[in-house]
Amino acid sequence: MLTVEEAFERIMAQVHVSPIERIPTERATGRILREPISTDRDLPPFDRSTMDGIAIAHAAFAAGCRTFNLVGTQAAGQPAATLAHPADSAIEIMTGAMRPIGTDTVIPYEQVEISDQQARISDGTVVERGQFLNAQGADRKAGDVLLPAGTLLRSPQIAIAISTGATHLAVAKPPSFAIVSVGDELIEPDRPVAQFQIRPSNAWGLRAALHGLGCPASELVTLPDNPAAIEETLSDLLARHDGLMLSGGVSRGKFDFIPAALEKLGVALDFHRVSQKPGKPMWFGISPRHTPVFALPGNPVSTMICFHRFVKPYIRRTLGATDVQPETIALQSAIEPNRSLTLFLPIRRTPAGSALQEYHGSGDYAALGESDGFLEIPPGVDIVPAGAAIRYHAWDV
Amino acid sequence: MLTVEEAFERIMAQVHVSPIERIPTERATGRILREPISTDRDLPPFDRSTMDGIAIAHAAFAAGCRTFNLVGTQAAGQPAATLAHPADSAIEIMTGAMRPIGTDTVIPYEQVEISDQQARISDGTVVERGQFLNAQGADRKAGDVLLPAGTLLRSPQIAIAISTGATHLAVAKPPSFAIVSVGDELIEPDRPVAQFQIRPSNAWGLRAALHGLGCPASELVTLPDNPAAIEETLSDLLARHDGLMLSGGVSRGKFDFIPAALEKLGVALDFHRVSQKPGKPMWFGISPRHTPVFALPGNPVSTMICFHRFVKPYIRRTLGATDVQPETIALQSAIEPNRSLTLFLPIRRTPAGSALQEYHGSGDYAALGESDGFLEIPPGVDIVPAGAAIRYHAWDV
Repeated sequence: MLTVEEAFERIMAQVHVSPIERIPTERATGRILREPISTDRDLPPFDRSTMDGIAIAHAAFAAGCRTFNLVGTQAAGQPAATLAHPADSAIEIMTGAMRPIGTDTVIPYEQVEISDQQARISDGTVVERGQFLNAQGADRKAGDVLLPAGTLLRSPQIAIAISTGATHLAVAKPPSFAIVSVGDELIEPDRPVAQFQIRPSNAWGLRAALHGLGCPASELVTLPDNPAAIEETLSDLLARHDGLMLSGGVSRGKFDFIPAALEKLGVALDFHRVSQKPGKPMWFGISPRHTPVFALPGNPVSTMICFHRFVKPYIRRTLGATDVQPETIALQSAIEPNRSLTLFLPIRRTPAGSALQEYHGSGDYAALGESDGFLEIPPGVDIVPAGAAIRYHAWDV
Repeated sequence: MLTVEEAFERIMAQVHVSPIERIPTERATGRILREPISTDRDLPPFDRSTMDGIAIAHAAFAAGCRTFNLVGTQAAGQPAATLAHPADSAIEIMTGAMRPIGTDTVIPYEQVEISDQQARISDGTVVERGQFLNAQGADRKAGDVLLPAGTLLRSPQIAIAISTGATHLAVAKPPSFAIVSVGDELIEPDRPVAQFQIRPSNAWGLRAALHGLGCPASELVTLPDNPAAIEETLSDLLARHDGLMLSGGVSRGKFDFIPAALEKLGVALDFHRVSQKPGKPMWFGISPRHTPVFALPGNPVSTMICFHRFVKPYIRRTLGATDVQPETIALQSAIEPNRSLTLFLPIRRTPAGSALQEYHGSGDYAALGESDGFLEIPPGVDIVPAGAAIRYHAWDV
């Protein structure tokens, strides 16, 4: 049986990076950038004032001039004015404005007294050449990459893209997934439910997670425990989608037909069973045309955890995302690990770190309602003490 | 001048919780639930097998019976069968199936040998009454709340909602915001840019952030440095939107007309200036009809940080969201705090915690491209050592 890390690496080895599409930047939030964005000009694009005040030639100050005739105003959004007589005159300047030609230094209003179109520098003011000006190109040079390929586009990155004039962006085309629930017990959520029936909550949860990853085109299919129907539908779905997720149908019972149907369709088993709790029966395979098939255990907590631990990073890497650093969180109270299996435990974030959710096992999906994510506790024999930094996976979608 | 916490509390004091709308559950991902979701039935809804195996009456086992006639199969999705002769017979049972009437115990296939329609329990098997059955109602009782109002709906919560048959959900109606950029230097991003011009990256970044919070209906407006035009447009926007965000125009220069225009429109100043770096000139006020006006400093880093530190939590609370626990991250190398101002510093997450981004000040927005969020370092005189847990705000939208 594979460890969690081994299963993860086996899945990641099957990543095929998805194609690129070009979309308007205002619709690109949450997407993965696939071509780098470079600045089309120096940053700042000109010598830029960082204060409101007056712009002078420092040489005049060094020569002893303390009172300057104000001969104009340089606002942001104006081409650079020219200071014709720098020895005894100055130009008022606003934050963000260009340095006027003939000036090289800004003195803030706070250090100046202004009256009768003259600015007098306050006694004792220290004035250094070039002060309160950000030099053209000081931050970046034209052509420098601001956003490398693989960047997740959040609000700061959208702002940066627009600063370069990029009104369209090359982003990853999201893969299309089919989500298949198998079981005679399943009943559509808008229908009356008998006691022995179950609503397809796993499939709806997986669709929501895909949506959060920017993959809106998922197809939901519910199938009865009927080998012929399963095989026929899976064959059709494999031909039409970039990936399959199945929920349920991979444990050992006689009504679990999925692995057999997949084998008939030529889907090569990569692994079945992972040394983890919950989620041990997880199944992963690859179709003849390289479509990944994730058969997730049907218990609701197992489904969610297996998706977030394995399928989510697979999809992110398929989209071309740069790897995200693993997150850790402080353990609020000591935990006894399992001797042989990796434990996944739903938690709620608290001021002290992570509080375990009361949780009765992989069928107790209600425990996830107020959880923020889950811990990953590797197998071991020693108690993990309170305060330890533990790997943490947030429900971020 | 207010501290960051004081400014935050002043803003939070102005929250008016937004109205409720009912939407299909498949479109509710990322929204805030506003009415609690209770389970319509016990969880589990019946005594449910957790294994594939055989269901027996424990009394028969206690009486010494070890070989049972197999008289039927109980699959998931079937009403409960009845075991007519529990003294020496059993029913095969699948994971997730109902407990057949007349049985009270499940023995997994692994502990049974089956041949000729008989199941023989392996020698030495310990069988406890009720084992491998999750009792009806053991996790939750019908009517128990699974998702309280204020819950952020991610994939696990969508699954839980559907498990109760909730195909529509009461969620917060997102507020509509106008985003106003002010400055003669601004030029639309699809137009040729002169050296002294700037593209309205702040406004686009703010729109992306609102979109990430589930507020799609934001209106972008660019205004010149013209007091009459500013006043007229702001008046119109205040009448049509639930909130205003302004970028730029709140520092001290003579071309900064915003505070004056807002005052004329009856917008009551709540505070101007916060003891923080960057973002000190931040301005906040309330219109006569209680519309909040966030005037964010125009430097791009200030705009983004002020949004994520102040406006984002305001919007989340307006939507009715339960407060999120503050996040902390380990400092990778020591930092000298500012003596009087709270410092916000862009960082990148690393295996060791948080690495400071190279960053030349509030105009150096390019530094945000590869950042994951920012630290918040309170004012002080002592060096903050490497390894310290520091408050961290992620770019999560």
